[in-house]
Amino acid sequence: MKVSQAVPASGECRLGVAVDLTGHEAAARRPAGNAEAALSALADYLADDMLACNNEIIARMQSDVPLIPQLAAHLVAAGGKRLRPLLVFASARLAGYVPGPEAMRHVRVAACVEFIHTATLLHDDVVDNSQLRRGRESANAVFGNKASVLVGDFLFARSFQILTADGSLPVMAILSSTSATLAEGEVLQMTTQNDLGTTVEQYQEVIYGKTAALFAAACECGAVIAEASEEIRAALRAYGAALGMAFQIVDDALDYAADQAELGKTVGDDFREGKVTLPVILAYAAGTPEEQIFWKRTIEDNETQTEEDMAQALSLIARTDAIAATLRKAEDFSREACEALKVLPHGELRSLLEDVAICAVYRHR
Amino acid sequence: MKVSQAVPASGECRLGVAVDLTGHEAAARRPAGNAEAALSALADYLADDMLACNNEIIARMQSDVPLIPQLAAHLVAAGGKRLRPLLVFASARLAGYVPGPEAMRHVRVAACVEFIHTATLLHDDVVDNSQLRRGRESANAVFGNKASVLVGDFLFARSFQILTADGSLPVMAILSSTSATLAEGEVLQMTTQNDLGTTVEQYQEVIYGKTAALFAAACECGAVIAEASEEIRAALRAYGAALGMAFQIVDDALDYAADQAELGKTVGDDFREGKVTLPVILAYAAGTPEEQIFWKRTIEDNETQTEEDMAQALSLIARTDAIAATLRKAEDFSREACEALKVLPHGELRSLLEDVAICAVYRHR
Repeated sequence: MKVSQAVPASGECRLGVAVDLTGHEAAARRPAGNAEAALSALADYLADDMLACNNEIIARMQSDVPLIPQLAAHLVAAGGKRLRPLLVFASARLAGYVPGPEAMRHVRVAACVEFIHTATLLHDDVVDNSQLRRGRESANAVFGNKASVLVGDFLFARSFQILTADGSLPVMAILSSTSATLAEGEVLQMTTQNDLGTTVEQYQEVIYGKTAALFAAACECGAVIAEASEEIRAALRAYGAALGMAFQIVDDALDYAADQAELGKTVGDDFREGKVTLPVILAYAAGTPEEQIFWKRTIEDNETQTEEDMAQALSLIARTDAIAATLRKAEDFSREACEALKVLPHGELRSLLEDVAICAVYRHR
Repeated sequence: MKVSQAVPASGECRLGVAVDLTGHEAAARRPAGNAEAALSALADYLADDMLACNNEIIARMQSDVPLIPQLAAHLVAAGGKRLRPLLVFASARLAGYVPGPEAMRHVRVAACVEFIHTATLLHDDVVDNSQLRRGRESANAVFGNKASVLVGDFLFARSFQILTADGSLPVMAILSSTSATLAEGEVLQMTTQNDLGTTVEQYQEVIYGKTAALFAAACECGAVIAEASEEIRAALRAYGAALGMAFQIVDDALDYAADQAELGKTVGDDFREGKVTLPVILAYAAGTPEEQIFWKRTIEDNETQTEEDMAQALSLIARTDAIAATLRKAEDFSREACEALKVLPHGELRSLLEDVAICAVYRHR
């Protein structure tokens, strides 16, 4: 099943549901494209920063132990959206940061944020035994679990080495506490796994920890680098947090909706692992007693699942409009992200960030 | 086989080999006891610091996610020598640090060093699939690999949170770069595994990374907290590095020598995993061509090992006196550690640290 078959398609948006953006300041110039297009436009605007960031990442992942850069390069070469560095750069510049000829602070901090993110990806793939990442074999599939755990540790340590050399205690405070929150989010996800009693609030707590916290931190670090006021710092942090929530919710929708080839990961992974994400919470809540028994069996005792169960899950999610409801939740956060930007100066960069937030719900992967 | 059967026992020392301490300044007052006794004496001397450190560790491993303190407590409750905090305290005080009524810096830094160490233990046990740690079931055996990886990440992040709040950039520089070195050491160990071409120098590089670097860092952090001179800082760092080398070499000897119950881990693990440690390097080098074929088969293709192979390995190690030669290497480092202390003030604390170094080769576990 594809979402585009279950809900009315809207423009170019694969996951298009009827979005009511009435009254929304940015609605008038809602971009025609999808999340990929909005991110590309932002990356183009920040092309010099992104190039410097790539160079910094490659330079700083080096080690005398050859397996470390080999494994790191596997992920770096696989691309990825580099969304978090983009947020550091966009926030810093929107808050007034102008790098001098020698000032590479924004680049260093952005590389650190990406290292922390990469470290968590490496560990997540080990923890979840994932075989695919960004459409390629995952690092653990190629190099083994041991190497993935240890290179994750290395990248995490390296990021704090870079931050220490940079010397900004506020940035270190943000990124160290966010790293702790990230781990807490993953552990919380583990403990809610297979538990259909998980509430929407608990689900939100999980995805805040595992995704939104680092988005928020990336934006806040940008503001700190720009020596912005507390108000601007809080606004950018709020933007990042809401954007991260929207992105993760859409991710969770895509797990029940996307084409595997386009998503670059295995569709239905969450179901197979018994992860209690928003589509399941909503389908379960809207289900008949018989359907609830189905969910209980397949999610709480996910090892007994069959391929027919997967098809049945997709059909129940379609019948209860759970994807549409999930995406409406994502849109709430997308709107919240745009609201947060109101105190930031008007201009092309702010518009680009609004586009990213608005389009967050329109993406394939 | 026990080492005490293979080599002449000396005093109370289980792993006693003939040690020539002639000309060594500290030799005259060489303690009768073993490493445990020397460490206990040091811990008694620093009892107040150690108590404060335990409290700090328990306070700072808390989280709203209950599984995190539960898992962390499993390791903390299992005890362990708390060797690294001891080194922070001893070094700080030997370098002249006197905490005021409010000054808890030494306690915070010591707790961070122990968190970093605990994080690496958690990840190592996952990576090595170890079922025992300190004589109890390992955390991964009880809580699973996922939780162990993530709680390791949490403790690592938490340590940098504490260090950031503490605000000492030099301490952060030491501990972040040491954390990177730790990960590099583990990866290097992985890549030398199953490779009988590993040289003594490569072996030393591995154990420096996986053990000695954090010992060195603990001592150096103590010196930094005490605002000691560069000379004192370098001396304490050298002491820690040499002590760490001695400890790890003895650890590697014990893996072929100790009673399993006393060691608190499975004896022969290194052999079963095909780890190329000093006893194997030396036994292989001293082996007949036929014995070398045995080592090649069992270490380089360790999955084909049988229980008889384990017995044969122990017998070859005994025949080639590889444990005695391994311990002589440990004694070289032990002597180097004592030498490094020469620039530090005479007194009870320095004597206690010398005892720890001298006794490092005399321990059961």
